[in-house]
Parts: sequence; C-alpha cells; structure tokens
Amino acid sequence: MIRRFFKSIEKLTADDVLPLDEVVAQLAFNEEGLIPVITQDDESGDVLMFAWMNKAALEKTLTTGRITYWSRSRDELWEKGLTSGHTQQLVSISFDCDGDAVFCRVNQKGAACHTGRLNCFYLQVNREANQVRLNAASS
Amino acid sequence: MIRRFFKSIEKLTADDVLPLDEVVAQLAFNEEGLIPVITQDDESGDVLMFAWMNKAALEKTLTTGRITYWSRSRDELWEKGLTSGHTQQLVSISFDCDGDAVFCRVNQKGAACHTGRLNCFYLQVNREANQVRLNAASS
Repeated sequence: MIRRFFKSIEKLTADDVLPLDEVVAQLAFNEEGLIPVITQDDESGDVLMFAWMNKAALEKTLTTGRITYWSRSRDELWEKGLTSGHTQQLVSISFDCDGDAVFCRVNQKGAACHTGRLNCFYLQVNREANQVRLNAASS
Repeated sequence: MIRRFFKSIEKLTADDVLPLDEVVAQLAFNEEGLIPVITQDDESGDVLMFAWMNKAALEKTLTTGRITYWSRSRDELWEKGLTSGHTQQLVSISFDCDGDAVFCRVNQKGAACHTGRLNCFYLQVNREANQVRLNAASS
C-alpha cells in the first residue's frame, strides 16, 4: 500500500520541504473519499479517539485549527465539540509514511468520548481472563 | 456508526465484565474483514503507526502477545518485526466506544517505521508556511 509518491520522498531529510497541497493531493483517501484520523491529547499523551476526515474536513481543520471530522453516521462535516462544547484545538498534524493516515495532537476541552469518558478506548481487554472491562466514565 | 451492541453496553461500570469473544464478535470489521489499529509506544507515549487487523490477526495478537497485523500489500498475516527484528510486544489492548477501532500499547523494539524512523508519522505539517517537512530518520 506504499504509494509511489510517498515512497519517492522517504529519503528526503529534515532540510527538505514539500508544498502542503501537493502532499494532501497524494493522500490515500479511500473509495468513500475518507482517510483515517488518530487524535492524541497533546498534554496527557492519551490517544483520544479514532475517526475519519474527507478532504473538505482536512482542509477545514488545516485552515481553522479546529478539528473537523467527517461524520459517517450523519453524512456531514463534524466540527468536534460544536454542540457539546468538547472542542479539539489543533496543536500539530502529520501524515504517515504511506499517506494513508492523519495524526493530530490537540488541546482537548472536556471529554473526547460521547459517553462522557475522557477517551473512546474504554473497552479494556483482560487477556488472561478472556474478558473485557469498561473503564469508568469520568462524568 | 454506533452499533447497537456497543450502545447497549455504554452504561456498564468498571465492575462489569464481558466475555472477550462476545465483544470481538461484535467488532466492526469492514467489508474486507479488516479493522483499523492504532499502536502507541507504552514507554514514550509516541503514536507509532496505523495499520489493520483481520479477525485472525487480532486473535493471534491476543493469544501470543506479539502484535500481528494484516498486510494489505502482501495479503497475508504480518507479525510485526518477524523479518526486521523490530517487534512489538503487547502491553495492553482495548476497543473504542463504537467497536470500530483497536488500540494497542506496546513495547517497541527498534524503529516502528519501515524507513528506519521511530514512528510512521514523520510528514509534519507547517500550517503557517503551507509546507510539509519530514522528521529525520533515526538511522
């Protein structure tokens, strides 16, 4: 899945720069026009959530600094926290080696998860017991 | 995209446990039988990479504690580091609120990225300059 463009730039060094729009144009949006997004709390280091962006959501995020996903359930742009107040302010954004994922570090206001938990990954596996335990809600 | 099963267990508390196989059976594998996986370095907190697992890869990871993905380019199970030596030992594993992503914390040996960089998210956006700069390779 390593696309030619990303393969071709692997050897560039920290002294090299690329135009942002050129890189965005090469990103591996899937057949639905979406790319996976990982969001990490810049302060705690917690991985907060996993979601998707389309190109418009990515461009809005880049322009405004307010994290905006694509809601697959509502089929619309989803500026995180617009209704809940639990906004995510962009600190830094990067792409991975084969251009098929977006990584955002954010300042998270309130809980990232719609359940009120601080992050969405609350279904914790206990491998020894073959069980899943839920991390408690923070509110 | 919140599936009924995951919605129904949202209110459970940390005192409740669920059978692991029951939860795995409800995970939102896509039409290719794959689910997104985020991998974080347990020591540094760095988000290392984004990849995919099918059910067999997830079960192998759960059983062996050695992170095993599904390679979409090679169309086969991919035990991370089996050829490079850059293995990932599972520390903890969890699922998100709507069962459509897997999150692993690992002990990473060597570089996580095939380019020799410590993590795959080395294409760093500079929003002010509309540029992308590559983080330097560690080796």
